[in-house]
Amino acid sequence: MTDTTWQYENFEPSGSAIGFRIVRKLDEVQSPFQKIEIFQTTDWGNLMLIDGAVMLTTRDNFLYHEMMSHPALFTHPDPRQVVIIGGGDCGTLREVLKHPGVRKAVQCDIDEQVTRMSEKHFPELCDSNADPRAELLFDDGIAYMASAVPGSLDIIIVDSTDPVGPAKGLFNKAFYESCFRALKDDGILVQQSESPLVLLELIQEMRGEMRKAGFTAFQTLPFPQPCYPTGWWSCTLARKSGGFDFREGDARDKDFESKYYSADIHKGASTLPPFIAEALDA
Amino acid sequence: MTDTTWQYENFEPSGSAIGFRIVRKLDEVQSPFQKIEIFQTTDWGNLMLIDGAVMLTTRDNFLYHEMMSHPALFTHPDPRQVVIIGGGDCGTLREVLKHPGVRKAVQCDIDEQVTRMSEKHFPELCDSNADPRAELLFDDGIAYMASAVPGSLDIIIVDSTDPVGPAKGLFNKAFYESCFRALKDDGILVQQSESPLVLLELIQEMRGEMRKAGFTAFQTLPFPQPCYPTGWWSCTLARKSGGFDFREGDARDKDFESKYYSADIHKGASTLPPFIAEALDA
Repeated sequence: MTDTTWQYENFEPSGSAIGFRIVRKLDEVQSPFQKIEIFQTTDWGNLMLIDGAVMLTTRDNFLYHEMMSHPALFTHPDPRQVVIIGGGDCGTLREVLKHPGVRKAVQCDIDEQVTRMSEKHFPELCDSNADPRAELLFDDGIAYMASAVPGSLDIIIVDSTDPVGPAKGLFNKAFYESCFRALKDDGILVQQSESPLVLLELIQEMRGEMRKAGFTAFQTLPFPQPCYPTGWWSCTLARKSGGFDFREGDARDKDFESKYYSADIHKGASTLPPFIAEALDA
Repeated sequence: MTDTTWQYENFEPSGSAIGFRIVRKLDEVQSPFQKIEIFQTTDWGNLMLIDGAVMLTTRDNFLYHEMMSHPALFTHPDPRQVVIIGGGDCGTLREVLKHPGVRKAVQCDIDEQVTRMSEKHFPELCDSNADPRAELLFDDGIAYMASAVPGSLDIIIVDSTDPVGPAKGLFNKAFYESCFRALKDDGILVQQSESPLVLLELIQEMRGEMRKAGFTAFQTLPFPQPCYPTGWWSCTLARKSGGFDFREGDARDKDFESKYYSADIHKGASTLPPFIAEALDA
């Protein structure tokens, strides 16, 4: 291990950092939107950074991708039409397409280079890119949702970077209004909602903006994610009406593998620790 | 924030690192056993390092201390006699003493300086040190357990550092045999059991040693812990016989506050994600 170095992400909003032991840099591209770097690590497989922020590693991305997709898809009664905003690494798309009822899954990421880098360095995440139900668009997700056919979607998954830079417009009322309009009445919006320990205010603000856009019911699900700041992350689900009872039997009987997600993990995550429940008034 | 610096812990076994933004070093002592340093952070309150490894921060220690104590104490039918091996910061002791049925809680940490530093820089964790039920010993936990009265204890909590240096002897069959002998038939041994993502092998080995010492039933509970490597940690409970049904009603009706622990969190943690369940054959 004499030639290894350490690569850190200092996450300013939380005053904490995550780092990995690096063997070497494998690739780098400056896209029109951001700088994408790929490293080989000693213990985590490959590592993708975007503008210096850790996006994913080979070893632990299953946690995030499973939790961004399966809870929502098992909560919706019959998810057929799915849109993923962001998600250019294609890992969420792969999980979504494990649900046999899905007819179409559109992935709309503004940056084609993220997908090209993922195809090269995280090929297992791109396993389903050739699925006839998959459509990969490289376009502005905000414009895409603004022009989506009203009442046409069952699930919208906002699989974005932090709310700075290109992703900033994905965390406000105007964007959520587009999502609200595009969803069917029983549709579900899912968004990655950062660290439940240090960014509770962001989750509160996000829920506030979603509420202004018309959503009435919210569920925040925490899960471990070692490569993200604090190692503890969350997604937030929003609905126009109704609640978050899920198809527990279907989740138990699912005919695909998952490493973290299970019906019991879903149930467990839906009960928040007291300090989070209190902050979110959930 | 111009004068801040970043302090990292490079955790060699996992090839990952955790860091904090530091305002200044508040204190430092070289005890006969280890070097203890205290830093003031920008966002996490105070931070204690032992030999360069993060032990706790003001902000997130509640996760660890609550999960090291309440699941075991609500699983035991009537915990009265408790011993904590290690735990010199006194945070686990404080949680244990929240249980009104506890008659005596002995904390045996080899290094008095850890407690002295905690009294100065984490005084809230030492709130219960003057409780007449508390006894603070500064002695070798291995020798203490070896000479404990057989069948005298309800709960033993091994709140130790990583299995290197002074804590190495707390992770093997000889030590577990002492614990087995000291516990009553319905007693419970709890040990911090490192990261369930990257140190699953250590948990497997630990359970193997516990089994050799006579324990027959095991439960590993994962929980978030941002200041430890990977941000995801665990404790492992072991019993001579019986299972891990807990006093759920008592946990719901408890008359003390907790920030992370609740009856539902306890239930949720007791169902392992598929990849951990498979590895532990649980």
